[in-house]
Amino acid sequence: MSKNIIIAIDAMGGDNAPKVVIEGMSQARTLYPDTRFLAFGDEAIIGPLVAQHSNLENSVEIIHTSEIVSADDKPSQALRRGRQSSMGLAIQAVKDKKAHVAISAGNTGAQMALAKFILRTMPGIERPALISPMPTLRGESVMLDLGANIECDAHNLVQFAIMGAAYVRTVLGLSRPTVGLLNVGVEDLKGKENIRQAAEILKAEEHLHLEFSGFVEGNAIGAGDVDVVVTDGFTGNIALKTAEGTARLVSELLTRAFTSSTSTKIGYLFAKRGLQSLRSHMDPNNHNGGVFLGLNGLVVKSHGGANANGFATAISTAIDMAKNDLIRLISEELAQTTEVGQECGDDS
Amino acid sequence: MSKNIIIAIDAMGGDNAPKVVIEGMSQARTLYPDTRFLAFGDEAIIGPLVAQHSNLENSVEIIHTSEIVSADDKPSQALRRGRQSSMGLAIQAVKDKKAHVAISAGNTGAQMALAKFILRTMPGIERPALISPMPTLRGESVMLDLGANIECDAHNLVQFAIMGAAYVRTVLGLSRPTVGLLNVGVEDLKGKENIRQAAEILKAEEHLHLEFSGFVEGNAIGAGDVDVVVTDGFTGNIALKTAEGTARLVSELLTRAFTSSTSTKIGYLFAKRGLQSLRSHMDPNNHNGGVFLGLNGLVVKSHGGANANGFATAISTAIDMAKNDLIRLISEELAQTTEVGQECGDDS
Repeated sequence: MSKNIIIAIDAMGGDNAPKVVIEGMSQARTLYPDTRFLAFGDEAIIGPLVAQHSNLENSVEIIHTSEIVSADDKPSQALRRGRQSSMGLAIQAVKDKKAHVAISAGNTGAQMALAKFILRTMPGIERPALISPMPTLRGESVMLDLGANIECDAHNLVQFAIMGAAYVRTVLGLSRPTVGLLNVGVEDLKGKENIRQAAEILKAEEHLHLEFSGFVEGNAIGAGDVDVVVTDGFTGNIALKTAEGTARLVSELLTRAFTSSTSTKIGYLFAKRGLQSLRSHMDPNNHNGGVFLGLNGLVVKSHGGANANGFATAISTAIDMAKNDLIRLISEELAQTTEVGQECGDDS
Repeated sequence: MSKNIIIAIDAMGGDNAPKVVIEGMSQARTLYPDTRFLAFGDEAIIGPLVAQHSNLENSVEIIHTSEIVSADDKPSQALRRGRQSSMGLAIQAVKDKKAHVAISAGNTGAQMALAKFILRTMPGIERPALISPMPTLRGESVMLDLGANIECDAHNLVQFAIMGAAYVRTVLGLSRPTVGLLNVGVEDLKGKENIRQAAEILKAEEHLHLEFSGFVEGNAIGAGDVDVVVTDGFTGNIALKTAEGTARLVSELLTRAFTSSTSTKIGYLFAKRGLQSLRSHMDPNNHNGGVFLGLNGLVVKSHGGANANGFATAISTAIDMAKNDLIRLISEELAQTTEVGQECGDDS
């Protein structure tokens, strides 16, 4: 592969596909002019959209397929019927080393199932997990799993902790990340059995390259109390979307607050720039691009509801990780904690 | 009982008890001068604190107990040892009709276990659930369960839906509340088995006094897409605290945004009042006071970390519900949907 990044795009996935997908590609290419795209989907629909963007003219290869994974498809259906879909073929391109990374804004469960089937998990890892940075008071933390695994046992959670810490060491450059298990209280006896068991294992394993901080509650996410927040995919997805909904609520109330009187309207004129920077910091479209950790290949998940700017952010995230060879780095990190990885993998 | 409200207070429960509890009582009494308190706890500690507030002089009866339910106590331990604790005795006072409502900021699981044991559940209700209003773009919605039941089956969730709707009809005055089940996607096949089963039951039961809106995602909470958000106590607690943490994050970033330059500082001076109103709207201390629904008596749960203002809010909530005879109204509402209640109760 050339050193320029090649990105396999599921052009048909997401609430507003393929329009915002193609627009996002164009936006991203303005920032990263060396990027090339393989766009999978219905050529009759994608072709005219691509043609609207002059900077995509010689950088996009459209690979036609009429198969689509729908938002309603179960992971099992995606595995049976989705291999030739725009989503499946994009992931296959990574497997075949025709692309450095695959991106889709489609059905998360289907993407996870196809990615796991086509790329296989890293040695010692039972299940991949979806990870993403979250804005916090201290800057950024990461949370996983954000929706790939609805139910998780203790060993899954331990593997998520190890992978999350490896991601933080690699991407954020922290040598010994702090890791917390998301729970309904910080006391040892709180919460579900699988979480308590995971805590026991993480406490016992002293050779891991992480600092286990015990249980953390939901408010620890925004506070940035730990670098890595570990949870099952159901809870992680609810927490992520609740945080986004709350940020949107506050932002909207802020607008109302500023338009409530002449005095506040004047205030807005002066404060505008600071507020725009705040909104930008909290806008989910600027934090878009979760990664499926634990696979032998790079697969990025965009929000289903992302706008063109959001999809461009997901592409930037993908380029960044591909350039830094995230998969190799994580895999090297995990090799150093093989014992634990193996022990957990055996339990499935 | 007199028509003035008598409140049984667990003076020893919560992170900052008994100091903020007593201060909260004093603040509440300034707003509701007719209120009387039974304060349960260590007289040697509470007495001097009460004496510091002149408006509590003739309105507080201290009932001494040296027993305390700690944050570490399991529900089973609370049931064995906690009956004579400040928390247990406060709930017992409601059972004995010596108080209209009991309030504690202590251990949620213990409070739920003791309340269920002492007061018993309403006919047809298997498990009580903790409910609280949440600020939304549309005003206020409610969410339950917020932490009383870590694991819930489909019938528990159906009962929560019915109780939540009854609460909204009673407290918010909406005749046919919309109800959504919190899930990781809105499609029928998404999420866990118990949630999908609950959806099937709620779809089939057409005589309920509610409008079932299907599944909602985490962002629907802040958007106020439904009047009642139904979930298990684990997920609800995480969602609630994540929302609070995010609101705090945005509020802090806002302060930073306003102090980032001279221009934004000037803006702040003009916008101050609007912003204060926003902060006030989002401050969890101003929404404090969850209620355990489904019991034959009124028990209010304050945040463990509430400040004096927050505890005073919980007291106001308690007074409001006691004056409106919430328990009788909910119980009448539930009687109208007896079939479902019974059917669900039978399943335990």
